[in-house]
Amino acid sequence: MEDNQKTLNKLRDEMTAVNGDIINHLNHFFSISNKIGIIKDKMGLPHFDPVRESEMLNDILMKTRGPMPAEDMQRVFMEIFKVSVKEMGAGTRQKLKVSRHQGKGSKVINVGGVVIGNGIPVLIGGPCAVEYPEQVMKTATYLKNMGIRLLRGGAFKPRTSPYNFQGLGEEGLKILKEVATSLDMRVVTEVMSSEDIPLIEKYADILQVGTRNMFNYSLLKQIGKSRKPVLLKRGFMATIEEFILAAEYIYNGGNEEIILCERGIRTFETQTRNTLDISAIPILKKETSLPVIVDISHSLGRKDIVLPIAHAALAAGADGLVFESHFNPAAAWSDAQQQLDMKETEELIRYLEKYFKF
Amino acid sequence: MEDNQKTLNKLRDEMTAVNGDIINHLNHFFSISNKIGIIKDKMGLPHFDPVRESEMLNDILMKTRGPMPAEDMQRVFMEIFKVSVKEMGAGTRQKLKVSRHQGKGSKVINVGGVVIGNGIPVLIGGPCAVEYPEQVMKTATYLKNMGIRLLRGGAFKPRTSPYNFQGLGEEGLKILKEVATSLDMRVVTEVMSSEDIPLIEKYADILQVGTRNMFNYSLLKQIGKSRKPVLLKRGFMATIEEFILAAEYIYNGGNEEIILCERGIRTFETQTRNTLDISAIPILKKETSLPVIVDISHSLGRKDIVLPIAHAALAAGADGLVFESHFNPAAAWSDAQQQLDMKETEELIRYLEKYFKF
Amino acid sequence: MEDNQKTLNKLRDEMTAVNGDIINHLNHFFSISNKIGIIKDKMGLPHFDPVRESEMLNDILMKTRGPMPAEDMQRVFMEIFKVSVKEMGAGTRQKLKVSRHQGKGSKVINVGGVVIGNGIPVLIGGPCAVEYPEQVMKTATYLKNMGIRLLRGGAFKPRTSPYNFQGLGEEGLKILKEVATSLDMRVVTEVMSSEDIPLIEKYADILQVGTRNMFNYSLLKQIGKSRKPVLLKRGFMATIEEFILAAEYIYNGGNEEIILCERGIRTFETQTRNTLDISAIPILKKETSLPVIVDISHSLGRKDIVLPIAHAALAAGADGLVFESHFNPAAAWSDAQQQLDMKETEELIRYLEKYFKF
Amino acid sequence: MEDNQKTLNKLRDEMTAVNGDIINHLNHFFSISNKIGIIKDKMGLPHFDPVRESEMLNDILMKTRGPMPAEDMQRVFMEIFKVSVKEMGAGTRQKLKVSRHQGKGSKVINVGGVVIGNGIPVLIGGPCAVEYPEQVMKTATYLKNMGIRLLRGGAFKPRTSPYNFQGLGEEGLKILKEVATSLDMRVVTEVMSSEDIPLIEKYADILQVGTRNMFNYSLLKQIGKSRKPVLLKRGFMATIEEFILAAEYIYNGGNEEIILCERGIRTFETQTRNTLDISAIPILKKETSLPVIVDISHSLGRKDIVLPIAHAALAAGADGLVFESHFNPAAAWSDAQQQLDMKETEELIRYLEKYFKF
Repeated sequence: MEDNQKTLNKLRDEMTAVNGDIINHLNHFFSISNKIGIIKDKMGLPHFDPVRESEMLNDILMKTRGPMPAEDMQRVFMEIFKVSVKEMGAGTRQKLKVSRHQGKGSKVINVGGVVIGNGIPVLIGGPCAVEYPEQVMKTATYLKNMGIRLLRGGAFKPRTSPYNFQGLGEEGLKILKEVATSLDMRVVTEVMSSEDIPLIEKYADILQVGTRNMFNYSLLKQIGKSRKPVLLKRGFMATIEEFILAAEYIYNGGNEEIILCERGIRTFETQTRNTLDISAIPILKKETSLPVIVDISHSLGRKDIVLPIAHAALAAGADGLVFESHFNPAAAWSDAQQQLDMKETEELIRYLEKYFKF
Repeated sequence: MEDNQKTLNKLRDEMTAVNGDIINHLNHFFSISNKIGIIKDKMGLPHFDPVRESEMLNDILMKTRGPMPAEDMQRVFMEIFKVSVKEMGAGTRQKLKVSRHQGKGSKVINVGGVVIGNGIPVLIGGPCAVEYPEQVMKTATYLKNMGIRLLRGGAFKPRTSPYNFQGLGEEGLKILKEVATSLDMRVVTEVMSSEDIPLIEKYADILQVGTRNMFNYSLLKQIGKSRKPVLLKRGFMATIEEFILAAEYIYNGGNEEIILCERGIRTFETQTRNTLDISAIPILKKETSLPVIVDISHSLGRKDIVLPIAHAALAAGADGLVFESHFNPAAAWSDAQQQLDMKETEELIRYLEKYFKF
Repeated sequence: MEDNQKTLNKLRDEMTAVNGDIINHLNHFFSISNKIGIIKDKMGLPHFDPVRESEMLNDILMKTRGPMPAEDMQRVFMEIFKVSVKEMGAGTRQKLKVSRHQGKGSKVINVGGVVIGNGIPVLIGGPCAVEYPEQVMKTATYLKNMGIRLLRGGAFKPRTSPYNFQGLGEEGLKILKEVATSLDMRVVTEVMSSEDIPLIEKYADILQVGTRNMFNYSLLKQIGKSRKPVLLKRGFMATIEEFILAAEYIYNGGNEEIILCERGIRTFETQTRNTLDISAIPILKKETSLPVIVDISHSLGRKDIVLPIAHAALAAGADGLVFESHFNPAAAWSDAQQQLDMKETEELIRYLEKYFKF
Repeated sequence: MEDNQKTLNKLRDEMTAVNGDIINHLNHFFSISNKIGIIKDKMGLPHFDPVRESEMLNDILMKTRGPMPAEDMQRVFMEIFKVSVKEMGAGTRQKLKVSRHQGKGSKVINVGGVVIGNGIPVLIGGPCAVEYPEQVMKTATYLKNMGIRLLRGGAFKPRTSPYNFQGLGEEGLKILKEVATSLDMRVVTEVMSSEDIPLIEKYADILQVGTRNMFNYSLLKQIGKSRKPVLLKRGFMATIEEFILAAEYIYNGGNEEIILCERGIRTFETQTRNTLDISAIPILKKETSLPVIVDISHSLGRKDIVLPIAHAALAAGADGLVFESHFNPAAAWSDAQQQLDMKETEELIRYLEKYFKF
């Protein structure tokens, strides 16, 4: 037993020495790959070159004589390549533009005087869909009286069935804009199609990309050319990584005013419409420099647990909340069961004011 | 004990009698709701009227005096209303247009002489992305020699990162078209944006809507106006019901030539890129009249189990298979690990020919 | 158009009248079904009788003559039956015993002077696994000095691979008990098997049922016979409803001292080990009378977001938190990346003390 | 541009040279780690030693001076360590015992003359639960007349609610055994608890571990000591890897007669009770040497698509099928909607006989 321990110790020392050699060669490899990155930038070539990578992997296959199984050897090299491509061109464009690791602090977005991302949570309220002028005016007046200055409402509605109410279109935009102007509020509304961007820009202060369009890269690219701030909702089927890359599409297009919105993901649980991914909030705040808000209406799909979950979302670090409210939810044309009435809206705000300053 | 049994039997007889009354009244209710449906059709009103429904539920609340708890009573009535709306206007447009229950048989789609949905499975092969003319020509020539007449390839590629290869655009479409024309093949390629439809229609025989755009209702509506057949992929986190409704968007727009494509859904399992929902095949065949095919490359993301899964997909009733193939996958610019090389493609076809006629 | 509106109004009045009839008959049905429930209770028969239900459905099929389609008619009746069975025997045993709707308030559990569920959050800390006496003593001493009185640690470890460390068994229980006694702490430890209950009861103050055993009904029944409080973890694949029913198994066995523990569910997201279902907290508090705590280590599997998520869990109404801590996590035999070291533990507690009283 | 290309080529040659060095050192590392594995086996130490690994990672952190970022360097080494631990002790017990890569062919299991895994698919039929002698006798007689020799039926039923029918217990086992003996059939029935194993072994020919107990490692270990073949169902939220490791628990306990049963996983899709993971069949066949069967009743939860899915499962390479059947499903005490009646059972068998020999 003692002999075994001695041999073990000796082998471990040997391994430590080999590790040192590997470290040196990996650093050498890395300095070369960095130089390659710089050249490729000059030549306008992509950093990742699958043909070249597959040639190198074949080369490794031919060169290695074991005892490490060739497939394991390849796996280690794939990790090396992955790391190199990721870090290639350090100092130029190595990281995502939306990333927090860029020397720049948190993005603060000013929407006509309403500030998002400055540490004071914002509230965005309003009906699921714009229905008629009185509905928006009544709802918005209540909201404004409670101190809310961001008015949401859908004029173009993405609906699962083609036979459901699809929104009032430009008519709805006009109603939103008129009400918002008269009450000094800012308008948040959804864009479903690139063609509609010029139209919606005339009426809206923040362009919303809905959960169903987070993977619509054509739309993201066009939104990237807009000068209006964007509220980007996480796809209900999107990983956090995919969500960040969707934001990168917009940012890379030139529009840096992006608000990320967690709104629940699809799981097997049926008690809530979606499962709010509370952990996404601190992860997004850590990984990106963008403000992160939470849509508590769509993530839950029910009103009875809105208070504690709104509290939890802000406790987790959210920069704001979106919720649906309607002066008369029972008569709403869509999502009746999740829209807060005016009394419930006030309860929510009073409840949150116990814990947070607005 | 015996007395209890007697009482129980008596109560059951009473219940049976009450059931009879309820049946009669439900049928009466239903005949009224049918008439309402017909009137609403004439007036151009939607069948579902949430305001009216919420009024009726309130009315029920006021009228009922128990012992059935009011919320249970409302739940039963919501079921009654749901059934009524679903069946309202029977004989006019009560069912989905893509539904099998329309007296019309299975949809057969003829794409320039290549027939889909006639009971003989079709194979659709080709590279993930169009890279350069020789790549497409070499791959397509092999495929054609094996009897395949539908050539797929991406010219506009939806990629998770904005920095990944986004496709050659029109250049890629031209390559596809030239190769296909010279080999008498038909082209299947993806449309990512409404703006691109006219361009793509010039080169493609079948317009593909990708998994990330299944919820892009603006695109679906525009595709509905095209006269080219559509290959609609299931969203990787879409329910079967949502998938059918996405097809209905296209059909309702006027384009009835729709091929449904199951391509795997997102689950917790990581051995395959997605989890192929094999049950979706017979369910879609049963619920709709449209042809159903299976993308075995994207659902699996690995090549080693392609043979048995391709067999299983056809055994489950699929009208065809889509797979990615490349004359040199190791050098492919994307999805290298899931594209079949020419030898693997031939193996697949020889294997399937043991069980099916093509 | 006007005529149509008149007809519509007339039909609506008719419908309202029919609704009144249906209401009366449903209430009649319900009073009968209640009586049947009482008789069945006397006879010891289950309320739900699928044979009888299927006979009634067949009877309905034969009796109805339309126009409501027979399958819709059956669907409405299935809803009626469901409601009836649910409410049957009101006043006796109609609801779950763990349910809040029983006239009894929130369950408060006193574990040797440490109180759970009285509105003041509790913290449960300790290593993933008991390794050796010094490890537990050092860790527990730190925890105690920070005011924590509930010590967790695994002696029987459920591990995915049979070749991973399976725990020290009774040796580990002894270490836990000795340390806890010397520091006046209470022991929480997992029971993996009915056979081990008597042994573990000798050393532990709270018996933990792990996430992998939430569906192990044999174990739940045996735990139901224990007189020790139980910490029941939600299965990572369990719905909230299944979780509540698992608690009911224990409660129904006679053990009413149950603490529910949300610990994340399995989804497609990979940034966290599991997805913490934050909404489960208020839902469980609302549906049951039991205390609800959250395991922030297993739900996250990472340490960098523990502070905001711990805050969020308590904000959502949790009665306490479980977390893994180790005086030297880098040397831990399992779960090294998620165990807090002593400095991190103190940071967590100081952070939470800003918002909550302990 | 040409200069850039030259520099690029030169850098690539340099990289190829460095790769050669890395290969040599990795192979050296690997030969040391293999020796360590052999010593550790002698000393009875686990191959994976997180303390030592974390020391080495710290050592690497101190030694590396860039330019590769230290965290990337650590990531590459973690991959190296992972590969080493995985392959450590090659030739002794390096791989899982259930693994196909052990020089031994496919496991063939003979259950009293009924052979599973020999290339000819087996069918296992019978009611969800044993209810009363006539029910089992009638059902089994039909099955036997159709050539089926494996009779399934639950005597101990795992039910989500404690108030649902929990099975007849030993009474049920006796009924099963008597019927099976009289018809020369073999009995498959579920074991829910270690304590019940001796009892159930008296009556059953194959012990079933249900989906809810796949993670019940105490039960798996005890089943490993039994001499009866085991039918192990995949947990409905278990990965394929976890499923294989659950089988390893049994195998490692000494029981090598294991039949793996895919029965669907939990996803967001609601058209089927679970989503049958068809890809799991060829993956399990490839990764392990064990027979793989498919439970088509529990995976689907509906009868209307049983034929094509049964066909698909066998096409994917399954060694057999399990299905629930009942001479009168409408009167079944559980799972009424998924049990095949005798006519449907016969249809299934006739349908499959068109494609497979039994």
